[in-house]
Amino acid sequence: MGSDRKIDASRWFTTNLKVRYQENDSMGVVYHANYLNWFEVGRTEMIREQGLTYRSMEQEGLLLPLVDLQMKFIQPARYDDLIMVFTRLTKLSALRANYEYEIRRIQDDESKAMRSKWDCDDELPGELLVTGATNHVWVGVDWKPLRLDKSFPKLYNALIEAFNK
Amino acid sequence: MGSDRKIDASRWFTTNLKVRYQENDSMGVVYHANYLNWFEVGRTEMIREQGLTYRSMEQEGLLLPLVDLQMKFIQPARYDDLIMVFTRLTKLSALRANYEYEIRRIQDDESKAMRSKWDCDDELPGELLVTGATNHVWVGVDWKPLRLDKSFPKLYNALIEAFNK
Amino acid sequence: MGSDRKIDASRWFTTNLKVRYQENDSMGVVYHANYLNWFEVGRTEMIREQGLTYRSMEQEGLLLPLVDLQMKFIQPARYDDLIMVFTRLTKLSALRANYEYEIRRIQDDESKAMRSKWDCDDELPGELLVTGATNHVWVGVDWKPLRLDKSFPKLYNALIEAFNK
Amino acid sequence: MGSDRKIDASRWFTTNLKVRYQENDSMGVVYHANYLNWFEVGRTEMIREQGLTYRSMEQEGLLLPLVDLQMKFIQPARYDDLIMVFTRLTKLSALRANYEYEIRRIQDDESKAMRSKWDCDDELPGELLVTGATNHVWVGVDWKPLRLDKSFPKLYNALIEAFNK
Repeated sequence: MGSDRKIDASRWFTTNLKVRYQENDSMGVVYHANYLNWFEVGRTEMIREQGLTYRSMEQEGLLLPLVDLQMKFIQPARYDDLIMVFTRLTKLSALRANYEYEIRRIQDDESKAMRSKWDCDDELPGELLVTGATNHVWVGVDWKPLRLDKSFPKLYNALIEAFNK
Repeated sequence: MGSDRKIDASRWFTTNLKVRYQENDSMGVVYHANYLNWFEVGRTEMIREQGLTYRSMEQEGLLLPLVDLQMKFIQPARYDDLIMVFTRLTKLSALRANYEYEIRRIQDDESKAMRSKWDCDDELPGELLVTGATNHVWVGVDWKPLRLDKSFPKLYNALIEAFNK
Repeated sequence: MGSDRKIDASRWFTTNLKVRYQENDSMGVVYHANYLNWFEVGRTEMIREQGLTYRSMEQEGLLLPLVDLQMKFIQPARYDDLIMVFTRLTKLSALRANYEYEIRRIQDDESKAMRSKWDCDDELPGELLVTGATNHVWVGVDWKPLRLDKSFPKLYNALIEAFNK
Repeated sequence: MGSDRKIDASRWFTTNLKVRYQENDSMGVVYHANYLNWFEVGRTEMIREQGLTYRSMEQEGLLLPLVDLQMKFIQPARYDDLIMVFTRLTKLSALRANYEYEIRRIQDDESKAMRSKWDCDDELPGELLVTGATNHVWVGVDWKPLRLDKSFPKLYNALIEAFNK
């Protein structure tokens, strides 16, 4: 197999948030750039749920900048909406990590369902607002690409193991 | 007495959040303007806890813009810190609403204490990072000041009652 | 032909900006969501250069929300860099408007070249940092799609004429 | 006298900007936290006009975080307004630097007056929107306070000289 083995898609990881007043624009809806912040929140919480933190990765000199991204806007979110961020890995290799996202609006009474596990092919709850995908490369503090399995073998194994669960 | 009766200071209302990656600046700490967003989150959640929402107030044509504010920075927050926002009213009248805030860093194991009630003169938990105060006036959609007791008497009474609790 | 005639690509419109301190993240580079704000600045200035303003369009009840977008990150921008935002239309119809962008870093002494005209197939100056594309639909204040040629015929003709220049 | 000599108030330094769409909130006016970003733009441009850059100061290990701030909101700015940021030093010592700001709305035809010099007691042009003051301390990369005259004597002298002009 070797160290570049791919994972087709992990299960969905979820985190929830309330739309902040400052995130709305003068059309009365969330300004589109803010969904990228929520994708980041999704990635952060996904990594944390696996027993790692992006903060500690960064402190060890490992960065995960974006190479490219796509977003699709179906319905706008609004101030004070309850939002569920669905995040999953579609690729994890020694060189790259790719993520997919669904931003969904949940009614307060639906929210008891939150934080349980959602499989790759489960129907997701709530109303779909935004979908997206971000593609990343592993780099060091010098911003040069690195092979995760060579430079951070422990972390690499932990990630591979975690995302296979 | 009359409709302009003041309230010296309500109890503290609390809400918690995790510092987002995007909120850090290149000094590796939260950019100072972001604390104002957290104050706003504090106000929003305080109003909600009283059975009202700022969203519905705004939909009825009532706005609460800022007149002035002060902030004091004691320690910086950092990405992924667990933050507790303490908010209280120091004045509520037919014309004005004034708020005070404490931004505090909490350790994950302290966080069980969260969401219980904190009195005006209680010693607050965690590490103090930022204090602040924001002063507001009630205005209509035309941005002209209004008397809350005349224009929105039900809301006025609900607010007065709620904040006396 | 009819009112749905397409334009393959307008010339490039340019505007310049200095990277703000607040736009950097803790990797010491511009946080990726901020490039979307710069795309918006590019659209705003492009429309203004044509003798229209997005502000007045919005005041007349015409909105241009996003349907989808793509971004590609080649090099990061940093605090205090001089940035040139290149914007062009790739589609303008009664139903839709599509834009493309290049974010480029310019040295201060190159900047005399700024604000002159750049054709569709010109080689652009500076260092390429980010490319992107945003696709939009025309909607009314009710967020329902509308045909620009029916609802705002004058504006439609002005836009078509302007972007053909 | 010694190295702690104060300066009562420097002349006003100015920079101009157009309000960005993303800076508006759903009240249709600039969200109040954004004025802090404009204060930062004012400081950055003021330092640059003196022949220094905050970027290079930061690269040498010198930071200037905030200790406290005040803001007063007189009139709101709106999307696409032309804004003039007035910035001046009210204190510069080996330990501290304090700034004051006025945010003013300028009509496009007034803008020819821009970038000329404004004295401490000149009447300023345009419509006053926001005033503010930020107080800072000099710290090293370890976030410990330092004496600028001891740690960065050349810079200290350059700053003192520059701000006396």
